[in-house]
Amino acid sequence: MTRLQATYEIESPVGVARAAEVIAGEQSTGTFIRLASETDDLRARSAARVEAVEITGASDHPGLPCRLKADRYEQGRITLSWPVDTFGPSLPNILATVAGNLFELAEVSAIRLLSLEIPDSIAAACPGPQFGIAGTRALVGVETGPMIGTIVKPSVGLSAAETAALAGDLARAGIDFIKDDELQGNGPACPLEERARLVMQALDEAAQVTGRKVMYAFNITDEVTDMWRHLEMLEGLGATCAMVSLNSVGLAGLRAVRDRSPLPIHAHRNGWGLLSRSPHIGIAYPAMQKLWRLAGADHLHVNGLASKFTEPDDVVIEAAQAVQAPVSDSHDHAALPVFSSGQTAWQVGPSADALGNDDFLICAGGGIMSHPGGPAAGITSFRQAAAAQAQGVDVRTYAADHPELAAALDAFKGAVTRG
Amino acid sequence: MTRLQATYEIESPVGVARAAEVIAGEQSTGTFIRLASETDDLRARSAARVEAVEITGASDHPGLPCRLKADRYEQGRITLSWPVDTFGPSLPNILATVAGNLFELAEVSAIRLLSLEIPDSIAAACPGPQFGIAGTRALVGVETGPMIGTIVKPSVGLSAAETAALAGDLARAGIDFIKDDELQGNGPACPLEERARLVMQALDEAAQVTGRKVMYAFNITDEVTDMWRHLEMLEGLGATCAMVSLNSVGLAGLRAVRDRSPLPIHAHRNGWGLLSRSPHIGIAYPAMQKLWRLAGADHLHVNGLASKFTEPDDVVIEAAQAVQAPVSDSHDHAALPVFSSGQTAWQVGPSADALGNDDFLICAGGGIMSHPGGPAAGITSFRQAAAAQAQGVDVRTYAADHPELAAALDAFKGAVTRG
Repeated sequence: MTRLQATYEIESPVGVARAAEVIAGEQSTGTFIRLASETDDLRARSAARVEAVEITGASDHPGLPCRLKADRYEQGRITLSWPVDTFGPSLPNILATVAGNLFELAEVSAIRLLSLEIPDSIAAACPGPQFGIAGTRALVGVETGPMIGTIVKPSVGLSAAETAALAGDLARAGIDFIKDDELQGNGPACPLEERARLVMQALDEAAQVTGRKVMYAFNITDEVTDMWRHLEMLEGLGATCAMVSLNSVGLAGLRAVRDRSPLPIHAHRNGWGLLSRSPHIGIAYPAMQKLWRLAGADHLHVNGLASKFTEPDDVVIEAAQAVQAPVSDSHDHAALPVFSSGQTAWQVGPSADALGNDDFLICAGGGIMSHPGGPAAGITSFRQAAAAQAQGVDVRTYAADHPELAAALDAFKGAVTRG
Repeated sequence: MTRLQATYEIESPVGVARAAEVIAGEQSTGTFIRLASETDDLRARSAARVEAVEITGASDHPGLPCRLKADRYEQGRITLSWPVDTFGPSLPNILATVAGNLFELAEVSAIRLLSLEIPDSIAAACPGPQFGIAGTRALVGVETGPMIGTIVKPSVGLSAAETAALAGDLARAGIDFIKDDELQGNGPACPLEERARLVMQALDEAAQVTGRKVMYAFNITDEVTDMWRHLEMLEGLGATCAMVSLNSVGLAGLRAVRDRSPLPIHAHRNGWGLLSRSPHIGIAYPAMQKLWRLAGADHLHVNGLASKFTEPDDVVIEAAQAVQAPVSDSHDHAALPVFSSGQTAWQVGPSADALGNDDFLICAGGGIMSHPGGPAAGITSFRQAAAAQAQGVDVRTYAADHPELAAALDAFKGAVTRG
């Protein structure tokens, strides 16, 4: 693969094949009137190419509001490719190429970017995850099995001292990983530096007892130079993870963090629904996560099975698998999938089964904190569920002689049945 | 206004008022089970508040795929507010607050962020546009009337020398402004530094003849440290404008550019369709452009009237007006609206009329380059159209003794009727 390749699902009032040509023109040499300077040679060298067109169906009404009207809106998949020489390995420019003006064309009444094929030359020139799965396991001190995490809740409103006290309790209860909420950045009500100082103190104290330092992902989301300052401060405190909100800092913001981060980057995708929930316009996670991994994300959120959000389970699993798959023919750049949102002991086994391995982090708020036996029992219930899955035993059978698991399955029944 | 305020258009299977409470919870103190640490006092201090709920209608089917089913999906507008202390003036954290996980909630079957009310404390702490309308007029040397710009086309494929030759021709033909295409960044086929060097040479030579240096927006879109390097290089060459693709570099990337830019920032919104085209999910431009202006965008793209894209004209005008409106009660931070895409002499007057002033830049590719009399005549046709509008004369009447305008109106009839 020497060209960048993108596959889209589209619907068009002018037909899928014609729309493919229009998109290829718009996203490379295009202008609405062909100019004298636009020679055939130039087109051959620089133009996007339509690699494949597949017709899948048609609709009698447009998916999106569309200026061009038709009796029939043809549906299908198209694959376009671009020569790398136009943009080089610059991820922001690649994004402008595969996800730029094309979404606004009147020749499409629906368009979703489904997948990207990344040339090795681009993957080689990008940093990729610095820690990935193995590096994270080493820092967390968990060699096998899923890593169990939690989220500081309430999302906002706790003081730095209250947050630290909570983190210390969770560490003593045996958690592997804790993260700030994505709404908790560096506001005056709970400044990051004070929070980090007190939390790291609490975690270091707990480590004296447990022999293991919990990984805490501090939310450094902020302006670029502020994030760099936060990273330095965190390193000085012995912190082992930094979290960023991908959609808030942008692709260049993420890469700027990667360039100066001594810590794994825990990449939070809040706002992702905006880019993916509509069936008519958007980007599928398997496409977008490749750019985030190339830019350096170590951990990537993928929602959770039976979560409180509306994303179906098959999309969650497709996302988690994509995060572990090679980013290009010869470059892995694999990241750690992070399941979260409404997670309980119920979802541990099914997550591992669907993913086909246990190289993941599963984060739960209420599913741990609200366990009838308290947080330690909540964490134990997750580990017991993982053990059941690893041994191929049904979780309900395993619960018979594991009371923490039994209590969790009972308390969080709603988590899987979803009313 | 001391709290940050956001208004959304939503549809909900659980009713608009209930959905407002869920969103407020999710985007502030929320977790799916109320925890012991979540006291009433903490809620009062930190929680998002539902300020207004208005029911506007209902649908018997959900706008978006939605896990929660109902017989009736209630529609309406809601206004939420947040205490500034949670996030401070950090724009990335503000974005995570107003446009984060809420898009994925099962309690909404449609959700669009319509508007933001920015507290003065935030506007005061953000840089805002460095040049804005007046600073741009001063650099371009156009005191009154719309500024006329063009885009280097073909979008990609020209060498640096070919680009420079074209820029020189356009400068001698009397253009005010030229921009790189958003697909032309810093690829090996046409490296930015070589392009900038040759273009600035050509523009300086043209200025010897015309007495005026054309503003050229070089597309610096790239990783943060690369953009900083590009800015330094451009300043050294005497360039007067830098362009960035907003959605490619992200909010933090834009702010990083602003922090070190000696030049006006020409902000290109390619990819905006992804965020705005669906009626069921998205962000309206009046909301998003405030964050971009706070971060420092000087020029903001708003599409054009009767453009080649699918956005309706009223949305284009609403966007252009928004860009000029004060960003908060006491802070203007106004930016220059940029009309583009399929623009010709036909659209100049209607753009000024709809906007209510001529403080805008209108960019045309084919509408200038493909004028039957050549680019100089194309530019003249734009100025004549602006003069007609300023004098309150119908453009067709004015064309009677202005042949360049007459030729443009004839050649580009399709631009307004849109077949």
